Amino acid sequence: MIEKLIQKIEKTKAPIVAGLDPMLSYIPGFILEKAFQERGETLEGAAQAVWEFNKGIVDAIYDLVPAVKPQIAMYEQFGIPGLQAYKRTVDYCKEKDLVVIGDVKRGDIGSTSAAYAAGHLGRVQVGSQSYAPFDEDFATVNPYLGTDGVKPFVDVCKEYKKGLFILVKTSNPSSGEFQDRLIDGRPLYEWVGEKVDEWGRDHMGQRYSYIGAVIGATYPEMGKTLRKLMPQTFFLVPGYGAQGAKGADLANFFNEDGLGAIVNSSRGIIAAYKQEAYAAFGEEGYAQASRKAVEDMAADIRQALEQA
Amino acid sequence: MIEKLIQKIEKTKAPIVAGLDPMLSYIPGFILEKAFQERGETLEGAAQAVWEFNKGIVDAIYDLVPAVKPQIAMYEQFGIPGLQAYKRTVDYCKEKDLVVIGDVKRGDIGSTSAAYAAGHLGRVQVGSQSYAPFDEDFATVNPYLGTDGVKPFVDVCKEYKKGLFILVKTSNPSSGEFQDRLIDGRPLYEWVGEKVDEWGRDHMGQRYSYIGAVIGATYPEMGKTLRKLMPQTFFLVPGYGAQGAKGADLANFFNEDGLGAIVNSSRGIIAAYKQEAYAAFGEEGYAQASRKAVEDMAADIRQALEQA
Repeated sequence: MIEKLIQKIEKTKAPIVAGLDPMLSYIPGFILEKAFQERGETLEGAAQAVWEFNKGIVDAIYDLVPAVKPQIAMYEQFGIPGLQAYKRTVDYCKEKDLVVIGDVKRGDIGSTSAAYAAGHLGRVQVGSQSYAPFDEDFATVNPYLGTDGVKPFVDVCKEYKKGLFILVKTSNPSSGEFQDRLIDGRPLYEWVGEKVDEWGRDHMGQRYSYIGAVIGATYPEMGKTLRKLMPQTFFLVPGYGAQGAKGADLANFFNEDGLGAIVNSSRGIIAAYKQEAYAAFGEEGYAQASRKAVEDMAADIRQALEQA
Repeated sequence: MIEKLIQKIEKTKAPIVAGLDPMLSYIPGFILEKAFQERGETLEGAAQAVWEFNKGIVDAIYDLVPAVKPQIAMYEQFGIPGLQAYKRTVDYCKEKDLVVIGDVKRGDIGSTSAAYAAGHLGRVQVGSQSYAPFDEDFATVNPYLGTDGVKPFVDVCKEYKKGLFILVKTSNPSSGEFQDRLIDGRPLYEWVGEKVDEWGRDHMGQRYSYIGAVIGATYPEMGKTLRKLMPQTFFLVPGYGAQGAKGADLANFFNEDGLGAIVNSSRGIIAAYKQEAYAAFGEEGYAQASRKAVEDMAADIRQALEQA
């Protein structure tokens, strides 16, 4: 799956993942009203609005981006109907040949991680039948429990040709509270990064491992260090746009081959029509505003890589 | 909710949480066969078997234990039908007046943690209506992202009188890989423990905070240190039984008031009928075997606390 991701990045010339993290406050009124009329102001209504909103955006941008990253929390908050909208979104994006990164940040002790891995990336056995319940292409994983909490995900990726992005240095303001603490003179995130590199070494695509890392765009100097430390690890880089990182910050996360990273933007793409720069599209043109925001982001990253 | 948990522990004299972590391999053949006959060898069939199995156990033990802890991964692996069985299990346990600890180990950047917190512990707004989608009493949380990833959960607990157990030192073999690394001479889990204590200090029940910690029973010496470091923090202690910890290991996790900890057993309770000691109950008596296993575990812990 890492090869498919890289091929799509090369084809689109846009190392961009669109974060499908819909809040109801991002969704245009006309979509909300229709959903509430049909399903009421219910969890089902919210889920339908989320799905309709997503579909509009995916239809508008699927030829421009290699991948999408639905954040499952934004669906899980609406209970079972929300999770049905998540599943529908995953399925639809795969129909559109997008690489789907399930931003689930799961991670537990071994037997439990094995269940998450089966449910999200692999297959689960029921009697004589087997099923792929969520079937994302990649999933994000939390490493706090160590190797035996991560290994079951790695094993499932190997069996089903999927991939992971493991949290190393996250984009949020207080990520440093534990991740930056020094252990034998080096921050925890470097130790985690080395482990990710180790977990990934036997799980290579042609140039990069399918065991990747999450490194926040908001910490470009740390990105530079980690890029050197983990040359064969693909980075998922959140934090561009709404979280504050700019194109110029991004070059550090890429290798000299122009690859090695994919940059996520969520609000900046899916709620673009709410920004002044794209206000002319209006609510009805929200999906076209998202398309323009993707084009602008791709140009911003290309410029940053050319100037680096 | 921490007060309810403590009152129920005092009433049952059993600081035990039954881990409702059903694997299909734990479920007696007669339940599986019935479910597969009715719903086929499908995800729906698996979910029905899980629910029937859980209901039998809950009916047999609800008067003996204060709390249950469904591990959501074991349901999520069966996709949407599995998550419906999770929700049904949560609801049923609450009807039986059990305290429900959702073992979800969620944790993300602030806005995303807020969505998880609303979905699992609080309420979510849809137009003019609000809903409590999963509505567990407690949830487990992963602290790797630091304060801004945890704070939204704490805020929701305050508003809705719920509680948390935050991962500090987990029970699995490789938990030490990162958690035990020394930072300024003290292991990471102690720094995390201090943060949990700090997050919990303004969120007190009468004697204990409703912001608790997960400390694995498999590391009793570390439990002893953490018990002293965090006297007002309630501990959720997994790892008893199948994971290897014994009653004698447990005294370290309790305060002198005989409180401060609740010990989880999953397989040891729910699959008790598969153990030699309870084999006489047979498959048909699986729930009564679970009841006897709870009684034996309660006696084991009481003895450990008396001898300490």
